[in-house]
Amino acid sequence: MIRTDGTETQSEPPMSWCEGYVAVDWGSTNRRAYSVDADGRVIAKLEDAKGVLSVGPGGFDRAAAEILEALGDRAMLIAGMAGSNRGWRETPYVDCPADAQALAQAICWIETGRVGIVPGVCQRGSGADVMRGEEVQALGAVAAGLVPADGLICHPGTHAKWIAMRGGRIDTFRTMMTGELFAVLRDHSILSAQLAGEVALDVSFAAGVADALGGADLLASLFGIRARSLLGGGRSDAGYASGLLIGSDVRTALAGRAPGATVALVGAPALCALYSAALGQAGMVGNVIDGEAAFLAGIRRITEFL
Amino acid sequence: MIRTDGTETQSEPPMSWCEGYVAVDWGSTNRRAYSVDADGRVIAKLEDAKGVLSVGPGGFDRAAAEILEALGDRAMLIAGMAGSNRGWRETPYVDCPADAQALAQAICWIETGRVGIVPGVCQRGSGADVMRGEEVQALGAVAAGLVPADGLICHPGTHAKWIAMRGGRIDTFRTMMTGELFAVLRDHSILSAQLAGEVALDVSFAAGVADALGGADLLASLFGIRARSLLGGGRSDAGYASGLLIGSDVRTALAGRAPGATVALVGAPALCALYSAALGQAGMVGNVIDGEAAFLAGIRRITEFL
Repeated sequence: MIRTDGTETQSEPPMSWCEGYVAVDWGSTNRRAYSVDADGRVIAKLEDAKGVLSVGPGGFDRAAAEILEALGDRAMLIAGMAGSNRGWRETPYVDCPADAQALAQAICWIETGRVGIVPGVCQRGSGADVMRGEEVQALGAVAAGLVPADGLICHPGTHAKWIAMRGGRIDTFRTMMTGELFAVLRDHSILSAQLAGEVALDVSFAAGVADALGGADLLASLFGIRARSLLGGGRSDAGYASGLLIGSDVRTALAGRAPGATVALVGAPALCALYSAALGQAGMVGNVIDGEAAFLAGIRRITEFL
Repeated sequence: MIRTDGTETQSEPPMSWCEGYVAVDWGSTNRRAYSVDADGRVIAKLEDAKGVLSVGPGGFDRAAAEILEALGDRAMLIAGMAGSNRGWRETPYVDCPADAQALAQAICWIETGRVGIVPGVCQRGSGADVMRGEEVQALGAVAAGLVPADGLICHPGTHAKWIAMRGGRIDTFRTMMTGELFAVLRDHSILSAQLAGEVALDVSFAAGVADALGGADLLASLFGIRARSLLGGGRSDAGYASGLLIGSDVRTALAGRAPGATVALVGAPALCALYSAALGQAGMVGNVIDGEAAFLAGIRRITEFL
């Protein structure tokens, strides 16, 4: 087991996953850990700001031990940035297409059969892409019946992920720098003053989405925000810019898809609402699903192969 | 005249522009001033880092007086950011289409007939856009025979300007945030490490241009740079990213134009070389012209209406 002084003893046998376990979603800036009983119910939960970046090298044994102290000494599976090159132990990506069995087989064991890190998923070649964490939610969303086996899932955020499922597996995916681009433009560009306001689900946002869906080019449209401000424009520029970026994201992600398709949205409610509106303008249907339920179902599915 | 103590005397008559003048290109971060004789030849030049942002409110009388002390007390026309809301005196934009006569008539006179600021040019409505400085070069490029009367001119840079001339007038234009987007991504995004290298005219740059011309989406392609780095990609990511952005810029600006068109390039030689290469990949021809000659010809053309 992992002791609180950071040392390990390797003598104990692997735990039985069907007796329950701890599932951890360990991201860059925060972590959520769930104690799950034999029936798959969450019996205790821990959530704090000890994300991978705040723990840092050498601190993970202790940080993981805290989880087991709080939730009980059980087998533990960890997904997310804990497996990155800035995390606990770098865990090689599994190539797409990927299912829960492939993830289970590629777990990086900190303690064999007791504490493991679930790998992320990658694509190579011209569509090179990576993710860590969303893959568990995607597989779980299908396993829990929240998304059809051939569904399309969108995780909006700093790096928005669009995941195409096929036969219940992660078939392909694509990451968009939508959220980060908005943030760097707001914080560091000539548009800072214009983008400082609140983004709301309003006519400015809708106008940005409409321009993007109509084919507006980002490089040119972004400077237009500055120009309108100098020429005395009246609308909310932060909302328009957000609409432009999210609209571009949606346009690219849905290129070639027939109208009327449903996209499952997983993420912060306010952001899911913006994406849902943009999807509506694009003739698609956004369906917000429960990310926590998807994550728990994904980990459970992986344990079935252990 | 403007005296070095910043006070003005208004009694002196306007100077005669045909006896020569001082032409100033006063940008955000630097300024260039030329003393031009009656034949249009440059007889003296001043260039320093006293751009509009470093002069600041209240300092322009003194800063302008320095120019005339250095180059001789002559009539002076100033173009560029000196007419912006952070410059000497805010000078309203002239609407497109715009020619040299329209600019001359809208000069903001600090001293009537002696010291004037040439207005920038704007577009209103859905293609809202603004520029200050490039308009003088564009009109001058045609006046000097460097660009045909219906030519297309590109000023690459932080905010790249594409100017469509028609009958020698500025017909329409479009600003792309190409350079600034590259800079904020390099300095403030998750791509910082990947974009820190030098950008050269190499296969990585060409690959980025090719992807952009092929329709690659910026939001997705930019994250691909991060993904390739994590997966062990080998090429120069700064060059690829620059190619992607410049290629997107060129693709948008040239949409609908027949292959083989010539684009006049005005700007820093290294950047013009990158744009020229991207234009070549797009089946167009980049023709680097002398920006200083264009500027001087533009100011000269404006003085003909004074």
